[in-house]
Amino acid sequence: MTDMTDYSAQSTSLTLLGLGAMGTALAHAWLAAGHPLTVWNRTAARAEPLAARGASVAATAAEAVAANRLVVLCLLDDDSVGETLDGVDLTGKDVVNLTTGTPGQSRALAQRAADRGARLLDGGIMAVPPMIGVANSGGYVFYSGSRSLFDTHSRVLAVPTATRYVGEDPGHAALYDVALLSAMTGMFAGVSHAFALIRGEDIPPKDFAHLLAGWLTAMASSVYGMAGQLESGDYTTGVASNLAMQVAGSATLLRTAEEQGVSPELLSPYMALMERRVAEGHGDEGGAGIVDLLTRR
Amino acid sequence: MTDMTDYSAQSTSLTLLGLGAMGTALAHAWLAAGHPLTVWNRTAARAEPLAARGASVAATAAEAVAANRLVVLCLLDDDSVGETLDGVDLTGKDVVNLTTGTPGQSRALAQRAADRGARLLDGGIMAVPPMIGVANSGGYVFYSGSRSLFDTHSRVLAVPTATRYVGEDPGHAALYDVALLSAMTGMFAGVSHAFALIRGEDIPPKDFAHLLAGWLTAMASSVYGMAGQLESGDYTTGVASNLAMQVAGSATLLRTAEEQGVSPELLSPYMALMERRVAEGHGDEGGAGIVDLLTRR
Repeated sequence: MTDMTDYSAQSTSLTLLGLGAMGTALAHAWLAAGHPLTVWNRTAARAEPLAARGASVAATAAEAVAANRLVVLCLLDDDSVGETLDGVDLTGKDVVNLTTGTPGQSRALAQRAADRGARLLDGGIMAVPPMIGVANSGGYVFYSGSRSLFDTHSRVLAVPTATRYVGEDPGHAALYDVALLSAMTGMFAGVSHAFALIRGEDIPPKDFAHLLAGWLTAMASSVYGMAGQLESGDYTTGVASNLAMQVAGSATLLRTAEEQGVSPELLSPYMALMERRVAEGHGDEGGAGIVDLLTRR
Repeated sequence: MTDMTDYSAQSTSLTLLGLGAMGTALAHAWLAAGHPLTVWNRTAARAEPLAARGASVAATAAEAVAANRLVVLCLLDDDSVGETLDGVDLTGKDVVNLTTGTPGQSRALAQRAADRGARLLDGGIMAVPPMIGVANSGGYVFYSGSRSLFDTHSRVLAVPTATRYVGEDPGHAALYDVALLSAMTGMFAGVSHAFALIRGEDIPPKDFAHLLAGWLTAMASSVYGMAGQLESGDYTTGVASNLAMQVAGSATLLRTAEEQGVSPELLSPYMALMERRVAEGHGDEGGAGIVDLLTRR
């Protein structure tokens, strides 16, 4: 039997399990867009403001799941997902997991869902709750897993924020999510070191921030060069920016940190890897070889 | 007596000491723009191609310095500057130091120059040699120190690449330079970790680079928020992105690294500082407090 339901219509009804800060923001976005919404949360009080705005509040997770074909999970962690779905009938359900987790957890969940007659789409949210439901916030959700589920529900999924489907592997949304957050963490570490260096100088942080943002934006495009090196396997680069030059520059960075009374602890691990790579005879290469050092078992 | 020389004219003559990769690129840019140029290098052979293009080659550093009022230094390091200028008459000279060094070295050099009757402008080059002499390359040089020297020679200094004057403190050009390079080093560390995470997956590095560049560019603007916190001293931030939330997210980052076989060594120092800050009761703050930890003696 062909499914003739028009799931692209504005009125697609859905269920949401989990009403933390992110789940609550999602719920408000779907309600505001007119989607009939059934919610459940372990602590029932969190559902009350949503009930006042028209959400149906289910007494149990099983009841919430039974209410709709489309079931969105936005729980604390992977363990919460397992506990919440324990014993719940998932037959024929379209499960969208927005719970933060690892690629391995997402792949295991997809397998468990398949075993129980459901299809799974996993999501990695590249936004904070205040960006949800805000047009052009810049936020988006990586989705991977069931392409047909994504296609069926793409409109309702796009209500809270933009979507980016990145493939059938149910672990890839989480992997992209974590990879971008990891890169950001490194950038924040470098930025913290930079602000520490100018502390105590007569330099307004906001003026400095302007230069810093411009510089980081310009340097962000260097990831294309690194990607090209990783794809080709040829890591050699121009003499001006190779690892040998960067290692020579590290000495000035470290001496400056010492002069300014700043601990180099956030930068020294990267400098150590550059030195190691140069010591292994790769001074004529760019930074791609550092990736090798990180993944060498 | 008022100096009536029009130093803004295209034909300002100058001296350049040091013909490494950067010095050579600078020399070519000035020669191409028609500036009479006197060069000197410890290893004389490096001057030969420039002589063929019209540069005067001095036999000694003293002879080179004597040839022009404007003297640019682009030497190996601060020690080289000291050795090269030892015993050379600097009276009345306008010395522009583009040698890589620390803020302290630049300040000391400015003092030594003043003691010998010269004024000093220090520069920090935010470009690699292939960008020199290329219009709109995106590169630039931070300058600090003598404002009057900068104003006198601003046109000839702007020939190789764009200029940004950042104040009278002769150490600030080097400080801005090192601070931006430090931030970039952190970003490269994060980017290396991110590429390591996707290694071995069926994800083309160039496709991933596109997402990564967009994400880092978007996140670069977060430096304005951090600058505002550092200026106000109020580090508290929205619950969605405070340190307590980020520390919770670190667990997923570390588990994902383990799943993917990636060493977390480039990110763990920053995670440790976030944990320490949260343990000290600052879980409701943003990242500005990390700057405090780096500068606490």
